[in-house]
Amino acid sequence: MKFCIETDPKNSWYLGTRKFDPLKIDKSETIMYQGNGYLGIRACAEEKNLQEKRDMFVAGTFDSFDDEVTELPNLPDILNIKFEIDQKIFSLSNGVIKNYHKYLNLKNGELIRQFDWIIDQKRIHFKFSRFVSMSDVHLFVSKVEVESDSDVEVKITSGIDGQVSNSGTQHLVEGDRRLYDGKIIQLRERTQRSNIELIFNVLHKIYVDEVLLNSKPHIQMDRQKIAGDYQIKLLRGQKLLFVKYANVYTGIDSDVEEDDICDTSIGDIKQHSLGTYAELLNKSARAWDLNVWQRSLVKIAAADITPQVAINFARYQLAANTPPDSRMNIASKGLTGEGYKGHTFWDTEIFMLPYFIFTMPEIARNLLRYRYLGLGGARKKAKSNGYPGAQFPWEAAWPTDGETTPPWGSADIVTGEPMKVLSGFLEQHITSDVVIAVMEYLYASEDQRFAKEMGYEIILDAAKFWASRLEWNLSQKRFEIDNVIGPDEYKEHANNNAFTNYTAHWCIQKAIEIVKLLRNSDPEMYDELNFKLDLDEVYQDWLAKVDLIYLPRPNEEGVIPQDDTYLTKKKINITPYLSDGGHAKIFKKYNLQQVDNLQVTKQADVLLLLNLFEGHFTQAVEQANWDYYEPKTTHDSSLSLSTHAILASDLHLQTKAYQYFEQGCEVDLGTNIGKTTQGLHMAAVGGIWKMVVLGFGGVRIVDGKLRIEPNLPDTWDSLQYQINWHKSLVKVFVDHDTFKVEVMGNGIEFINHGKIYRIAANSKLELPIEIQVEVND
Amino acid sequence: MKFCIETDPKNSWYLGTRKFDPLKIDKSETIMYQGNGYLGIRACAEEKNLQEKRDMFVAGTFDSFDDEVTELPNLPDILNIKFEIDQKIFSLSNGVIKNYHKYLNLKNGELIRQFDWIIDQKRIHFKFSRFVSMSDVHLFVSKVEVESDSDVEVKITSGIDGQVSNSGTQHLVEGDRRLYDGKIIQLRERTQRSNIELIFNVLHKIYVDEVLLNSKPHIQMDRQKIAGDYQIKLLRGQKLLFVKYANVYTGIDSDVEEDDICDTSIGDIKQHSLGTYAELLNKSARAWDLNVWQRSLVKIAAADITPQVAINFARYQLAANTPPDSRMNIASKGLTGEGYKGHTFWDTEIFMLPYFIFTMPEIARNLLRYRYLGLGGARKKAKSNGYPGAQFPWEAAWPTDGETTPPWGSADIVTGEPMKVLSGFLEQHITSDVVIAVMEYLYASEDQRFAKEMGYEIILDAAKFWASRLEWNLSQKRFEIDNVIGPDEYKEHANNNAFTNYTAHWCIQKAIEIVKLLRNSDPEMYDELNFKLDLDEVYQDWLAKVDLIYLPRPNEEGVIPQDDTYLTKKKINITPYLSDGGHAKIFKKYNLQQVDNLQVTKQADVLLLLNLFEGHFTQAVEQANWDYYEPKTTHDSSLSLSTHAILASDLHLQTKAYQYFEQGCEVDLGTNIGKTTQGLHMAAVGGIWKMVVLGFGGVRIVDGKLRIEPNLPDTWDSLQYQINWHKSLVKVFVDHDTFKVEVMGNGIEFINHGKIYRIAANSKLELPIEIQVEVND
Repeated sequence: MKFCIETDPKNSWYLGTRKFDPLKIDKSETIMYQGNGYLGIRACAEEKNLQEKRDMFVAGTFDSFDDEVTELPNLPDILNIKFEIDQKIFSLSNGVIKNYHKYLNLKNGELIRQFDWIIDQKRIHFKFSRFVSMSDVHLFVSKVEVESDSDVEVKITSGIDGQVSNSGTQHLVEGDRRLYDGKIIQLRERTQRSNIELIFNVLHKIYVDEVLLNSKPHIQMDRQKIAGDYQIKLLRGQKLLFVKYANVYTGIDSDVEEDDICDTSIGDIKQHSLGTYAELLNKSARAWDLNVWQRSLVKIAAADITPQVAINFARYQLAANTPPDSRMNIASKGLTGEGYKGHTFWDTEIFMLPYFIFTMPEIARNLLRYRYLGLGGARKKAKSNGYPGAQFPWEAAWPTDGETTPPWGSADIVTGEPMKVLSGFLEQHITSDVVIAVMEYLYASEDQRFAKEMGYEIILDAAKFWASRLEWNLSQKRFEIDNVIGPDEYKEHANNNAFTNYTAHWCIQKAIEIVKLLRNSDPEMYDELNFKLDLDEVYQDWLAKVDLIYLPRPNEEGVIPQDDTYLTKKKINITPYLSDGGHAKIFKKYNLQQVDNLQVTKQADVLLLLNLFEGHFTQAVEQANWDYYEPKTTHDSSLSLSTHAILASDLHLQTKAYQYFEQGCEVDLGTNIGKTTQGLHMAAVGGIWKMVVLGFGGVRIVDGKLRIEPNLPDTWDSLQYQINWHKSLVKVFVDHDTFKVEVMGNGIEFINHGKIYRIAANSKLELPIEIQVEVND
Repeated sequence: MKFCIETDPKNSWYLGTRKFDPLKIDKSETIMYQGNGYLGIRACAEEKNLQEKRDMFVAGTFDSFDDEVTELPNLPDILNIKFEIDQKIFSLSNGVIKNYHKYLNLKNGELIRQFDWIIDQKRIHFKFSRFVSMSDVHLFVSKVEVESDSDVEVKITSGIDGQVSNSGTQHLVEGDRRLYDGKIIQLRERTQRSNIELIFNVLHKIYVDEVLLNSKPHIQMDRQKIAGDYQIKLLRGQKLLFVKYANVYTGIDSDVEEDDICDTSIGDIKQHSLGTYAELLNKSARAWDLNVWQRSLVKIAAADITPQVAINFARYQLAANTPPDSRMNIASKGLTGEGYKGHTFWDTEIFMLPYFIFTMPEIARNLLRYRYLGLGGARKKAKSNGYPGAQFPWEAAWPTDGETTPPWGSADIVTGEPMKVLSGFLEQHITSDVVIAVMEYLYASEDQRFAKEMGYEIILDAAKFWASRLEWNLSQKRFEIDNVIGPDEYKEHANNNAFTNYTAHWCIQKAIEIVKLLRNSDPEMYDELNFKLDLDEVYQDWLAKVDLIYLPRPNEEGVIPQDDTYLTKKKINITPYLSDGGHAKIFKKYNLQQVDNLQVTKQADVLLLLNLFEGHFTQAVEQANWDYYEPKTTHDSSLSLSTHAILASDLHLQTKAYQYFEQGCEVDLGTNIGKTTQGLHMAAVGGIWKMVVLGFGGVRIVDGKLRIEPNLPDTWDSLQYQINWHKSLVKVFVDHDTFKVEVMGNGIEFINHGKIYRIAANSKLELPIEIQVEVND
């Protein structure tokens, strides 16, 4: 695979670059992002650069500016350190830079940047190192080592700079700035409308040749800004070490009482500053190992190291962007950039949740609890549209906010008329997507407590919405769903989008099953939910409607019509418009209305339905639809590629599968600069794990049962991964000859090529690999 | 004088620099500011630089963020032009810069910046030229000429970038972005709380070797941002000319109906774009000549050109920062920076207004009308403090806002307790300062219409405030004014500050005179004002109180006590704390409370009283107070120096006078970087004109009469200036032998060394210069 950054053939944890390219600065800032899900910082330089995008976010701190929808505010900069050497301000564009090397160690989350800066015949060596702690979510530690080949005066200015914004929009209101104990620099702010308190502390320690200087900062204050400056005479050959300890606390932190955050934050920074950088990094690295690497192990043996780098990168970013608090969820860009305002989409349920369901079920549970907490907002949305039940928001922020899709987009450039963003109104399949995710979690975890406390209520209330959303077609004598946007967002007013109809129908089916189950097995629980949701009444409605819902069946060629009119539209050759980087290329030729009249699909739509509803359609139908839709799909959404890779793998289209796998890994890691400025494509990141484990590893939940049918790529020697199933850990090893499954914990069952295998508790099973002839694709 | 920029010994209109110094970037951006009083733009580069402060303001567009006091918002950037040459982003810190030269032509307001940029063995010559039009306040025109010594691909991105803020604080809410006629790029925004609509238009024209290209912009949009980009193949030897026409309109413009601003702005930019850069610049230059240079002519003949540069600079900045709309006033930093939020202080009345009263009376009238429009706010302030009448705000923004001094300043850095800003509460002399300015304007202009429509009401209502503000001291049997801040802001709770008591007393005296005058000469007017202000009643109050107001008289040594306790305080040697750049040096040794207990004065206080009340005190008293207070004054305020220069000149302390003159000119032009980042010190700028014309030129209004007693500095050969007096233009020429006065218009009277001279209409008078022996200072 071709990545925008360097890889190390011997080290799959390494992502690096030896060239500072101002034109690509955004991209590397995104890719080398550091975070722990609570706090996230883009990989900007300590010194400021012109083309940079300097962002730091804390999950959940949503605020709205004026009457705009809520977004995550860019928080005061704790990263910035300004160096002046003999009165010259250090910057990469000033003087000459030699031996530049910036790299992220995915294993322990440490970012290192080192180089020689040559200015006025002096050569100064800088090494910057830093990490966001995985063991203490509030903590960020940074150190700078400086050596010079001649005596120099070093002036360092470092502190907290709240003169930041979201591309010009300011959410924070200035609070106190203070110095504690002559050394702890503190800035307090609050969000303007949501009124969330924010506390930032910084403490510096300075050493020359390992001797701690007793230097008090000279404090500088400006609007929303406080910094200390330090002057050090550095002799030739001496080594200066500058350590910056920083922390962030907010009034919505779940680990601290709101009244205690200031004292706690001060106590913590004092305590942390007793440890060295290395000690604190080691502690964080142990957390990475224990919480992430051991639990989601994937090993690819191949001559090419890039697939292993990609899966390590994916696991790194999923951990670094997942909030540890169930009142928050993973944003479509994580905490890596301003794109999509920190909002959560179906990206979580369909593209990221499988990773957590199979490797860290308690996190999957947290992410689904967010939807439970969001039921109020979902009910509000349903009600405002005239429906009962829960209609989940297309874009979600704080769970109780309800719909946060901006209702209006950019104005039409010529007419000036603002264009309505229809997703928040019409992209209704999100409600099904949540239900699908809840069911998958329940199947895999058998978490009865979650089911009863939250899961069933989500499903039942979603079904209530869907049942009322159905429209009776008198002439056809069936229930239909008109005027929606399906996964293919090129079609803005589709009637009977197959994905939407099938998943809505399935939601109601699941709800019916749950009502039956509860009435039999837990009448007390049923009564409780019945009181809340009027189940007695709606259940009758479901029974009356469920079999009359129109499900677009495969036609004579086996093709499921994407919607009522898709198959009648004009066909074109889409090759010129394939997304090989140039995003939305088709709109250079056609406008949205014209694209609406073509058989062109933005992203997996019917194919995603086939993928999620594995076992509901024959392989022949899968093949027919692949043959039909794949050549019509532009992959203009980063969500498209992983689904295609998995489906191609299922269909044994090995070449296609691997091509899609590579493209899927390259969404962010590849050379296309694209929109990565705005942050990572977290769904594509989740897709990397899906392609490896669900695709090549062959893991699937089929009607609630585990299926494992690996399809190892030819170029790989072996693949090893592990999943959680029914509270047991299942380790899978696949090479071109054998397929080994080992269970730690209770025994499990799984299906392989139609046969059910049962592995006893804490034992292994080895199967031969069924050889599949590659279909000519 | 030593200036931070270069001067040209042959050209007093030139301010330049041949060195790009990132450490001094702020200073030159302020000094080379361009504006017309409506629109003001700092002299930032077209390309972005790291240490820059990129600000553009339109007078009067005040807005408040959260519950902060109102301020002028930094407006979307219409200046920025991004160049990429063969895919390298042009910046001054990238590649090598040769032959750098940036200079402002004060005469026509044109800013030019040229240099060679050497990158990848190519040499590209850039010349940037631009101006803010003085003939059409909405218009800004910029051109860039590019030549290269090899064939290059030039990419230019230019438009309107609203991703700006006031040091992080955002006032503007995104509106439409649009392209008109395929070429006019428009951004609309509005202020968040004050809801002022803002329209920005940009139109580009591109020529290669004088041939206009028919290039349509490729539009890029981002949050609060719209730009066009253009790709041009430039061959070696060809000349690229890029012209950017831009305009700004707001919903509060007085020259356009609010509903018409969009159409007007579009029509205007179309119309203007028919003219060449040179044509539009010429039109603007004619306006500069006619409106500014001819009307405020000052010519200094001296070997040293810097005094002439300073006076040209002062006249330039006064014109470029004075709003053409009487609902607005000159901010203490003009439109040149974010400092003091665009608020107006007594700086206008005491330090800038004399320039306008004597050279452009109609502008002085506008500036005083602003105070008339502010009577509502002043009454609100008085009422909130429990007084009747008008108490003018210490800081003023939109006239009806009333007091806009931020009530709270920074928190104490150690305790975190926010510190109260007392000026808004206690610095009450502003109410007298307004009255003094009104009277000076009336004396000089004899503008009866202003007096009756506005002036008298201001004075009467101010007197009403002062009379009620007086406190009866039972034991002393006199009225006192306790707990104020006088001009010396080191003393925060002074009792009977001489400046305050004398000026308050004088206000009441003037009010009494006006009542008498109106009762006699214009009973109808009197009845009207009586109805508004209850004059019958308050007049009795004034009469009863006026002679009982305590006026601190000179003591045995002739010294007027600055306040009740000043003379009893400890004396120190202030030499180490003199403001030679290091601002507020005294606070490095003493805190405010300690300074309060010292005989140390921040700025002219008693001395300013003597200066303003010329003729009320003997020369012996002036001398005694000079001898007493001058050595105790740190000049920590930029308002101090001009008063000292004028008083020293009056006392014939020629060396001191010239030293203070130089320091006064160097406040902004000098080498001290100081706080010029935040904008110019407009009071010091006004002070330059005061020092030349009132000081060395010897012009003064004494008890309503014109006095002219020049004191030409030894190093000057001659001084020529002109003033308006009683609607006539008075031209004065002074050299070391003679003193000529020429009147254009009706005859006038003036006093010179105790004698009254009368010059007939349109005639001249020549007097010998009285030789004054320099007192040994």
